[in-house]
Amino acid sequence: MGARIVIDTLGGDNGAQVCVEGAVEGLKKHPGVSVILTGKKKELDKLLSKYEYDKNRLTVIDCTEEITCHDAPVEAVKKKKDSSLVVGLNQIKEGKADALVSAGSSGAVLAGASFIVGRAKGVKRTPLAPLLPTAKTPSLLIDCGANVDAKPEVLVQFAQMGSIYMQNVMGIKNPTVAIVNIGTEEEKGNALVKSTYPLLKECKSINFIGSIESREIPAGKADVILTEAFVGNVILKLYEGLSKMLLEEIKGAMKSTVVSKAGALLIKRSLKKTLSRFDASNKGGAPMLGLKGLVVKVHGNAKKNEIASAIEQCNRFVKKDVSGKIIRGLEAQNEEQSK
Amino acid sequence: MGARIVIDTLGGDNGAQVCVEGAVEGLKKHPGVSVILTGKKKELDKLLSKYEYDKNRLTVIDCTEEITCHDAPVEAVKKKKDSSLVVGLNQIKEGKADALVSAGSSGAVLAGASFIVGRAKGVKRTPLAPLLPTAKTPSLLIDCGANVDAKPEVLVQFAQMGSIYMQNVMGIKNPTVAIVNIGTEEEKGNALVKSTYPLLKECKSINFIGSIESREIPAGKADVILTEAFVGNVILKLYEGLSKMLLEEIKGAMKSTVVSKAGALLIKRSLKKTLSRFDASNKGGAPMLGLKGLVVKVHGNAKKNEIASAIEQCNRFVKKDVSGKIIRGLEAQNEEQSK
Repeated sequence: MGARIVIDTLGGDNGAQVCVEGAVEGLKKHPGVSVILTGKKKELDKLLSKYEYDKNRLTVIDCTEEITCHDAPVEAVKKKKDSSLVVGLNQIKEGKADALVSAGSSGAVLAGASFIVGRAKGVKRTPLAPLLPTAKTPSLLIDCGANVDAKPEVLVQFAQMGSIYMQNVMGIKNPTVAIVNIGTEEEKGNALVKSTYPLLKECKSINFIGSIESREIPAGKADVILTEAFVGNVILKLYEGLSKMLLEEIKGAMKSTVVSKAGALLIKRSLKKTLSRFDASNKGGAPMLGLKGLVVKVHGNAKKNEIASAIEQCNRFVKKDVSGKIIRGLEAQNEEQSK
Repeated sequence: MGARIVIDTLGGDNGAQVCVEGAVEGLKKHPGVSVILTGKKKELDKLLSKYEYDKNRLTVIDCTEEITCHDAPVEAVKKKKDSSLVVGLNQIKEGKADALVSAGSSGAVLAGASFIVGRAKGVKRTPLAPLLPTAKTPSLLIDCGANVDAKPEVLVQFAQMGSIYMQNVMGIKNPTVAIVNIGTEEEKGNALVKSTYPLLKECKSINFIGSIESREIPAGKADVILTEAFVGNVILKLYEGLSKMLLEEIKGAMKSTVVSKAGALLIKRSLKKTLSRFDASNKGGAPMLGLKGLVVKVHGNAKKNEIASAIEQCNRFVKKDVSGKIIRGLEAQNEEQSK
């Protein structure tokens, strides 16, 4: 059996339309998958009527409330019990779904996932781990979530979860793990990195390759980029902001003269091809790991393509039993340590 | 009288040649300035013989040792007493110079500056503060130095020093200060940011505008970007690494087909103009603030242009009495707090 995936159709910038498009495509591509759409039934039925799809594999659950990015996340999750997000997360809690995909408020998705779905056995904290585009294959940046000021033992678990994810969902064999640091020598770093480093070296279930300076991240030097959530958040958002600014400046330069405009036309095709490699939307969204199920945060402005990719991502996660592998992996590590 | 500036001619990737070229240009442009070159006298004299310059304003001090990036910084500074860096820093200590510019090992420059030149009165820690290129004017990123895990009071001093620097050396009136955070709401952040935020709000001598997410840094949202050194180092190096990777990918795309190559020729000129705005070398180097004098770290691969700009930067720093302003500013703040 394939994965049972909830798509939260409210809260994203592009509305329910892209969710319906993505769901229909996902169903077509992945025969085992079934989809539950949570949102405004009337609107969803109307949108769905335009497509052909296997009706046995798609359900709509009507919800009367919506969580927006203006809501205080924790409060919203507690109070808006009939919101598309909360109803969707409860589907996982009640064993009726395996995964949820949402383009809604990051804070609410993270808070809801912790409160409603809950941590899997043995998991100390649940990290959010987006993929970063690099010059090589994408790297998993773990953690960018809400676990600021995390402890060393927590970071070690993140390294293990990230490795299991990259191996099973992204198909990277023996993925390399590096910890973000301000130099590559072992004695470098802040208090947290210095205490975490030896624990990572001892951890047999990961392929730890030492420290990574942030300068090396875009080159694709490691498959799993381990860091505490504050630093991870800074890296993720700087990645986005700097790429955007540089590309805008370059576009501006291309449009600045008649000659450069002509040149821009000629390089357009090659440039588009290159830049599409940096488009994360075909990789799905950022998984929140270590839950009793899977919650995937896609971009607020996600389109059909990103929703469909997230369905594929969830399906692989479930088929490869990543949750089970994480639980057993952490258990084995605990036994190893208590010897 | 203009500034008396030491140029450490050893340790940079491009050797003494670029230091001599930069010094000669600096002397020409800034009539009040005098320069002391520390390094291999024989080589320096030979290089200097090719240029015309005011011989009364340039001195060479012969040094028998060199600190390289392979040396352990602290040890090197303590043991290599006749290195161009240590001899240069001693010139400041002995009151014979006001500032030093070095392209050598960052670690050794930072360690040497602390040990030999020492902190100015009232300064808790001495931050390293490079300028970041943005879509607007450059922003000062403070701190990227060796003060990891700094305390809130230390960050407040950094905000004050950064503001004084931007106002006096970069000519920004009433510079805005923002603290790097993972959200813009006041309750967001890690423990350090949460304790520092209220202190910044109370500090009357700075123009504090709240939190900044790293995504907004490239847009030029604040003049002084305040952060603890670990995060600052991550930001600085990611800025460098990501810009480099993106530009290489774009260059690769331009060269990928015959058509795109033709296009690249047409946009070359406009693109060069745009990218030169992102070239930090015409802004001098990263100042280390709060010392009894000024130490400027230029890039390891600095060329003539960057050395000459650093001379200008040092000259402004000295002429505007930035050190004095920092000492008096911190004193006033202390008095304010003890009221």
